[in-house]
Amino acid sequence: MAYELHYWPSIQGRGEFVRLALEEAGAEYVDVARRPLADGGGARNLAQLMDELAPAPFAPPILVADGVVLAQTANILLFLGHRHDLAPRDEIGRLLVNQLQLTIADVVDEAHNTHHPLSSGLYYEDQKDAAKAYAEHFRKERIPKYLGYFERILKGNGESGAGLASEALTYADLSLFQVVRGLQYAFPIAMESMAPKLEATLALVERVAQQPRIAAYLASERRIPFNEEGVFRHYPELDGEI
Amino acid sequence: MAYELHYWPSIQGRGEFVRLALEEAGAEYVDVARRPLADGGGARNLAQLMDELAPAPFAPPILVADGVVLAQTANILLFLGHRHDLAPRDEIGRLLVNQLQLTIADVVDEAHNTHHPLSSGLYYEDQKDAAKAYAEHFRKERIPKYLGYFERILKGNGESGAGLASEALTYADLSLFQVVRGLQYAFPIAMESMAPKLEATLALVERVAQQPRIAAYLASERRIPFNEEGVFRHYPELDGEI
Repeated sequence: MAYELHYWPSIQGRGEFVRLALEEAGAEYVDVARRPLADGGGARNLAQLMDELAPAPFAPPILVADGVVLAQTANILLFLGHRHDLAPRDEIGRLLVNQLQLTIADVVDEAHNTHHPLSSGLYYEDQKDAAKAYAEHFRKERIPKYLGYFERILKGNGESGAGLASEALTYADLSLFQVVRGLQYAFPIAMESMAPKLEATLALVERVAQQPRIAAYLASERRIPFNEEGVFRHYPELDGEI
Repeated sequence: MAYELHYWPSIQGRGEFVRLALEEAGAEYVDVARRPLADGGGARNLAQLMDELAPAPFAPPILVADGVVLAQTANILLFLGHRHDLAPRDEIGRLLVNQLQLTIADVVDEAHNTHHPLSSGLYYEDQKDAAKAYAEHFRKERIPKYLGYFERILKGNGESGAGLASEALTYADLSLFQVVRGLQYAFPIAMESMAPKLEATLALVERVAQQPRIAAYLASERRIPFNEEGVFRHYPELDGEI
């Protein structure tokens, strides 16, 4: 049976981490909210579905698999990684990939906060000053700290071909790809100025992009372009050198 | 061999979720940073240890178990829950508890942001206006949304004795206890005004507090009191009715 992915239809957002794992796994799935309204697609149908599912998820993304309802990005990936060999088979190896994914989730949360530092319930325009202050700290302190951390791990793992947690790519590598591409979209100046320090990371991003299934996905209409409704938004006033 | 927990020695913080699980499990553990400086305790030794561990954790809490180094609160709990029967034994049950824990982690992140909305690198005093704006949204929109969600789950599970995910208590129940107690400490007015809508949640909190091992822990010196260095801080200017 095909997986059902339920996520906001017009953004990459947190759902994109799940989409990348499903694509790399070659799994059959339906991106339900992207279907026509009459077929149950659209944001309104998604909101309604949220009230009907059990156990109730707090928020999308949601994966329905053989009647099982799973939410929380890192949790869905833990499940998919195990089923589709996108994580090591042993318990400790899987926990390490989960740990990396949770640190990536922290970056994603903070990237979201750069444009919504005060409340998700306010427009960006109504929290622009706070956004500028937040984004400056994020660029100068947090991006170097997070990406420096992943760079050290990748360098420590040695030869090219190695991902964050093993010689095979894991879903944490797919997620790091997504975060780096997102940060490059949102903060092109900052990321350009940091590029010399991210040799191993940028090489990994390139390797992920060239995986046949990922390359096909990125070139397809299934990949929603980055835009100013998602987590990674390009507001030039928030960008600058690190 | 006893577990080693590595966490900042003067706060509950995120480490407290791990402490509660270790205590309820009756596990032998050393809260390393709380030992005297000469025995490797203190924040400075913790910072140094962080550089030496492999695989490198991004931040505390860190659990060392039989040579395995684990970080990220929810990840450590996933490991401990499985080992100490603080989660269901089947895969889907475990994923559900993990999902709940990740939603609790989101509350914790936002509770932290109420006093540090712009940057963890700035003093509270230097981001007080933003903190007031953030805290107001957090109180009025986020606390009701999150706690309303857990309340609905607990009510749906029916009879007293049932936790969030099963009839036995899981680590997600311990974590919800900690979050509610933390919110009550930080936002006493808001939490008091919401109490009538949290019947099942407050009953669960009471049940957790009365578990013999938890009760003994809470009465001991091992339990660090809430204070204004941790995640949940009582700044009266951030509190108010919901």
